[in-house]
Amino acid sequence: MSPAPRGQHRRTPPPPRGRAQKRGGRPPQRGGKSAQRTDLGGDQVEGRHAVLELLRVGRRPVTKVFVAAEQDSSEQLDQIEVLCRQQRILLDVVSRARLEREAGTESHQGVVAKTKPLQSVDVDDLITSVSGTPFLLVCDGITDPHNLGSLLRTAECAGVTGVVLPRHRAARVTPTVTKVAAGAIEHLEFSMVAGIPTALDQLTKAGIEVVGLAGEANTSLYDLDLRDVPVALVVGSEEKGLAALSRKRCSKLAAIPHVGSLESLNASVAGAVAIFEVARQRATR
Amino acid sequence: MSPAPRGQHRRTPPPPRGRAQKRGGRPPQRGGKSAQRTDLGGDQVEGRHAVLELLRVGRRPVTKVFVAAEQDSSEQLDQIEVLCRQQRILLDVVSRARLEREAGTESHQGVVAKTKPLQSVDVDDLITSVSGTPFLLVCDGITDPHNLGSLLRTAECAGVTGVVLPRHRAARVTPTVTKVAAGAIEHLEFSMVAGIPTALDQLTKAGIEVVGLAGEANTSLYDLDLRDVPVALVVGSEEKGLAALSRKRCSKLAAIPHVGSLESLNASVAGAVAIFEVARQRATR
Repeated sequence: MSPAPRGQHRRTPPPPRGRAQKRGGRPPQRGGKSAQRTDLGGDQVEGRHAVLELLRVGRRPVTKVFVAAEQDSSEQLDQIEVLCRQQRILLDVVSRARLEREAGTESHQGVVAKTKPLQSVDVDDLITSVSGTPFLLVCDGITDPHNLGSLLRTAECAGVTGVVLPRHRAARVTPTVTKVAAGAIEHLEFSMVAGIPTALDQLTKAGIEVVGLAGEANTSLYDLDLRDVPVALVVGSEEKGLAALSRKRCSKLAAIPHVGSLESLNASVAGAVAIFEVARQRATR
Repeated sequence: MSPAPRGQHRRTPPPPRGRAQKRGGRPPQRGGKSAQRTDLGGDQVEGRHAVLELLRVGRRPVTKVFVAAEQDSSEQLDQIEVLCRQQRILLDVVSRARLEREAGTESHQGVVAKTKPLQSVDVDDLITSVSGTPFLLVCDGITDPHNLGSLLRTAECAGVTGVVLPRHRAARVTPTVTKVAAGAIEHLEFSMVAGIPTALDQLTKAGIEVVGLAGEANTSLYDLDLRDVPVALVVGSEEKGLAALSRKRCSKLAAIPHVGSLESLNASVAGAVAIFEVARQRATR
């Protein structure tokens, strides 16, 4: 199957994207709760790393891959083409202008893929589906897609197995998140929940140590013993940190000691430092 | 001194910015080596945190602060206004469209300040100017302004005292860097060097342990003893990691062990994890 020639692209109109539902861009969840918003997003994947990982992992069916014509050749683009051919996925070579209309980010690197949205599982399933010691990340209201994408990429590299995201007042898995996460979403399990506090209760009841990151906490992150402990790290929002109700449901609150003059770290960096502190303790136990 | 009324802004023409030199936006360095490019950038500071920190620290003279009219009130904007009044700095309240023409980023949060570029010092001065154990960050070809800004913010929070940046083939301190660094540049010392390998030699000769981050290194970052050691962490470029010549001049190469499926961390996250590993060892010694 060779790439479609330029010009064969009448099917999808340019944005605004109000017709996404009609043209099947975002199908209802498998579970069938169509009235409730259970859609995590993740159905539009952008960037070379991210699209390549989507095709490599093969966890989600890919409808179509758009590639901009007239790009310098790259090993990743070649691999994307090979995988599309092997998997019989339509690779549509389009003009850069067309690709830019399809893309939701400015950093698409000439590649956009359409796939099924990520599936949400129950919080309990995040724990039971793991073979080793559970290591979860709970994002309590991260609103910047760059931060969410960055946290997901970092989490995957550090061995996080599942991610809890709130349904409301937080970034969904937008095209920017897919790009910045660089393929991490193909490996992680997600649970989208109505309320973070309830999810934290559920985790605690299942025997998970729920550690909230809070700049003002008296306990240093480095003083926690997290070596053999099933753990869920809770990272708060960029503006307000952990919500009051979430804070109450954490079994421990910990701060990253810092010695500089600035008030705080970026949320995704604070998350990264904490995620890798767990990974460090597990690696050096 | 009250904010200038709207409409008093004929002085600065909209971009393209080819006239920056003429209108004094980027004056030559104090040192006088005008033929050589010694300009680190940093003369246009954007975003509320960054502008507030610029005014608070007062290390650089501020020529003017532009604030967009018709913004929701914010504590930070109020503080910026107070500091401008106290320091007799012209606060120009302009239309949002005008501010957007002045701004170099899309995330200016309604505030842009004009100041002097950051001054570069000699590499040796980075060491001698420190009271405690030196802790330096060497950026070996970071090209993405977001990554550079993020590294600088993280570095400042972790107690890094000085930063080495290459003059060529790397991001300067652009408005995006000032925004993402959130004020960190007002606290850090910078040395802009013609070549990173020579600078690493200079650091080694001065008794600094030069640790390069390299994914393929056999040594784990966590196995290094960095508690009482004057250290320079070298972070390579997003695409290629450490340059071959820089790699050779590092006294140690270390990897961050990671257990996931993705190939690598984002450069600014890898840097953050390593920077905070030094900070952790120093905090828990």
